[in-house]
Amino acid sequence: MLKVYNSLGRKLQEFEPLHENSVGVYVCGPTVYGHSHIGHAKSYVSFDVIVRYLRYLGYNVRYVQNITDVGHLTDDADEGEDKVGVKARQMGVQPMEVAERYTRSYFEDMDALNVRRPDICPRATGHIPQQIKLVKTLLEKGHAYEVEGNVYFDVESFPDYGKLSGRSLDEMMEGVRVEARGEKRHPADFALWKKADEGHLMRWDSPWGIGFPGWHLECSVMSMEYIGPTLDIHGGGLENVFPHHDDEIAQSEAATGEPFVRYWLHNNMVTVNGQKMGKSLGNFITLKDAFAGLPPLERSVRPMVMRYFILTSHYRSPLDFSVEALEGAEKALQRIENTVGRVRRALEGAPAGEAPDEVTRLVDEARESFGTEMDNDFNTAGAIGVLNTFTRDVNRLLDAGEVLPREALEAVGGFYDELGGDVLGIITEETGRQAGGEVTGELVETLLEVRSRLREASQYELADTIRDRLEELGIEVQDGPEGPEWRFR
Amino acid sequence: MLKVYNSLGRKLQEFEPLHENSVGVYVCGPTVYGHSHIGHAKSYVSFDVIVRYLRYLGYNVRYVQNITDVGHLTDDADEGEDKVGVKARQMGVQPMEVAERYTRSYFEDMDALNVRRPDICPRATGHIPQQIKLVKTLLEKGHAYEVEGNVYFDVESFPDYGKLSGRSLDEMMEGVRVEARGEKRHPADFALWKKADEGHLMRWDSPWGIGFPGWHLECSVMSMEYIGPTLDIHGGGLENVFPHHDDEIAQSEAATGEPFVRYWLHNNMVTVNGQKMGKSLGNFITLKDAFAGLPPLERSVRPMVMRYFILTSHYRSPLDFSVEALEGAEKALQRIENTVGRVRRALEGAPAGEAPDEVTRLVDEARESFGTEMDNDFNTAGAIGVLNTFTRDVNRLLDAGEVLPREALEAVGGFYDELGGDVLGIITEETGRQAGGEVTGELVETLLEVRSRLREASQYELADTIRDRLEELGIEVQDGPEGPEWRFR
Repeated sequence: MLKVYNSLGRKLQEFEPLHENSVGVYVCGPTVYGHSHIGHAKSYVSFDVIVRYLRYLGYNVRYVQNITDVGHLTDDADEGEDKVGVKARQMGVQPMEVAERYTRSYFEDMDALNVRRPDICPRATGHIPQQIKLVKTLLEKGHAYEVEGNVYFDVESFPDYGKLSGRSLDEMMEGVRVEARGEKRHPADFALWKKADEGHLMRWDSPWGIGFPGWHLECSVMSMEYIGPTLDIHGGGLENVFPHHDDEIAQSEAATGEPFVRYWLHNNMVTVNGQKMGKSLGNFITLKDAFAGLPPLERSVRPMVMRYFILTSHYRSPLDFSVEALEGAEKALQRIENTVGRVRRALEGAPAGEAPDEVTRLVDEARESFGTEMDNDFNTAGAIGVLNTFTRDVNRLLDAGEVLPREALEAVGGFYDELGGDVLGIITEETGRQAGGEVTGELVETLLEVRSRLREASQYELADTIRDRLEELGIEVQDGPEGPEWRFR
Repeated sequence: MLKVYNSLGRKLQEFEPLHENSVGVYVCGPTVYGHSHIGHAKSYVSFDVIVRYLRYLGYNVRYVQNITDVGHLTDDADEGEDKVGVKARQMGVQPMEVAERYTRSYFEDMDALNVRRPDICPRATGHIPQQIKLVKTLLEKGHAYEVEGNVYFDVESFPDYGKLSGRSLDEMMEGVRVEARGEKRHPADFALWKKADEGHLMRWDSPWGIGFPGWHLECSVMSMEYIGPTLDIHGGGLENVFPHHDDEIAQSEAATGEPFVRYWLHNNMVTVNGQKMGKSLGNFITLKDAFAGLPPLERSVRPMVMRYFILTSHYRSPLDFSVEALEGAEKALQRIENTVGRVRRALEGAPAGEAPDEVTRLVDEARESFGTEMDNDFNTAGAIGVLNTFTRDVNRLLDAGEVLPREALEAVGGFYDELGGDVLGIITEETGRQAGGEVTGELVETLLEVRSRLREASQYELADTIRDRLEELGIEVQDGPEGPEWRFR
């Protein structure tokens, strides 16, 4: 029985979707004005695994994740400039070119991390009529008011306001300077529609004049358009609980009269060497930089290692990035990959035959433990622990030298494919296969071994030929105390 | 001086953009309800090279290509169902899931073909307010009329109607049955906005009731939104001249009073073994099938070979696909790739020194010829001819055995990089480089050579070790009369 920690109510609950077999999941997507960073990776890898696990359990999931290409302002209090618009001005291009470029960049990085594409990735600019419609409804129902081309949600008209974050309206009042309130009736009122100033690039006609939608609005509109008035799961980063998600709840429930979300799931943030990540702190790491090995990580991180590393902690826990932690993750993942490779190679020539009880038991127990971990609020850290223990046991079996029959290897391979592959997404069809890079490495090692033996036998001429040939191929050999080391020039 | 064949007026014209250094290009993009086929490849590879060449000439190009995710009906005469909607019903998913899936599929295929992404790829559903606005303008100006929730463009109100295709209104009248006219005043009138029937999935509010935009409308709206009232170049397939492009001209020019497009460029179609391609004919080839080697092509076509093959004919000429023709293209491309590889390898250890006159002349002449061909309405067939001749000459130089100095090789390499790479897009950074697969082959060859020498010296033990190690890596060695042959198992 799957249990999930619901931020609404802050407790672990049994998961029961609205409709028996279908699950509608909505996750707040990126604002596309820059390259994605490792915080995005944590969020979207986490929800990718959550969706994968729900599908593994047999649910028919519709996964919707928006692309924010308008309305996200530089200031949370409904002031400031549009983030995409600012970038457009800096780059000297149109806002839609900014959105296009960084939407592509985002999916490129997510593809690299083996994040499966959501079923629908609706864009905020693609749903202006629907957003206007929701604003109209809220005005009609008395939950919103217009002031000179701006429309605000009236938080005092919605008694449940703040139920997700647990903040009361009184608390929200505290510390707000009177002048900051502006034309709002209550400081916590938030913009549904904003009037476009002269210089505002993205603008649409509306019943309230030319303007653009408030940032919170798109998520309510697009989630309800593609899933319905009640979502089973709404995901996002913890930093969006207030005000973004409180606002989403208010405007959606005020409009429909239905509960907006059954389970709110929030992922925690990443830190770098124990510090909060931030552009101003100089420790801001984009995924492209991490994959390329630019500072502060210093060496390139294989996307699959990043994915594995993210999954070694629970999505609700913070995750600290450091070179050392990533290196540990790399070693651990390699161990799994090598074992998957061994199993796959062994399968190629495996004799027919039933699986010995020992193997069946091993696989069954691992499956059960894996399920127990994942059923506990998608505890990927525990699930990876199971995978590691399983890998140790499989290696022990393979090392024992006994030839395993086909069915045994298939059972082991099936565990890796389904749970390591379909669910966690860290094993793919290519894992451990001797294609490209891996064979190259093994061939170089073989040549170096032959060279060593030739040198031992004082056959220097042929030994040197090998070294020269490697040199020609751009492979540098360095003889050290622990034998030769090599690298591509 | 670049000359382009303008379908409007049907003559070759000097190319002069509206603003001196900027060129706005709009090309009709795909309707995303299925995988792209080889006809799409011809169209988008052609326009990709056109845009690349304009940029090579120094123009600042904004390239807009739409994604049609609503409004394209199964019947050209404003009847029938929405193509995306039909597919959604068949697949049992939402129309936006269909659009999402096939938009991704499209870009995946285009990426494989090394087609650079356009600067903006606006979606029809993302521009409903702008489409409604244009319909309003046309109604206000007396170029459109409403009948029960449908709005039609009144072709008789626009004297230039049909100026692109050259069809007269009288011709269009002929053969049209009276009952087919329905509520239209003239049979050539076309829908700007359609009322949504009960079962129509994609629907929006409008001043004329719930409905959806006519197919032609989006192109006018999105091209003018991102480029301006007058485009320098509008591209598309010949099959879209009438009615699609005639309709675009009518609604755009009637609304703005400005010329809509300076140069209309149309690409021709592809045939398969001399026959028109069609689903019903059983010779319909998707790009994914072609890349995978499914019938009727029988063997997998490397995307770059497909690209090269497309460019061997002029974009305005039809192109016939056949296994033989593709094999010819593959051989020709390989010859170029091998030579690029030779040049790049030679550069690595090249001695400093000026280029001999012979080389400078060769490169200069090739550059000039290439430009002459491309200036002649983007004659890629001629440009590829120049590349082939150049390659033959470069091989002759390299075969002569004389060591070419760095500057000579840089001049040759520069020609390949800029004209074969930046402009034609058939040479990339990887072309001819010894990465991955190629190194693997060379390493195996080296091991086999060492093995042969060991065997000659009767050192069978080490020789057999090499063979065993290769075997373990999945590499099968077969000793034949002409020495050992190897292949991956």
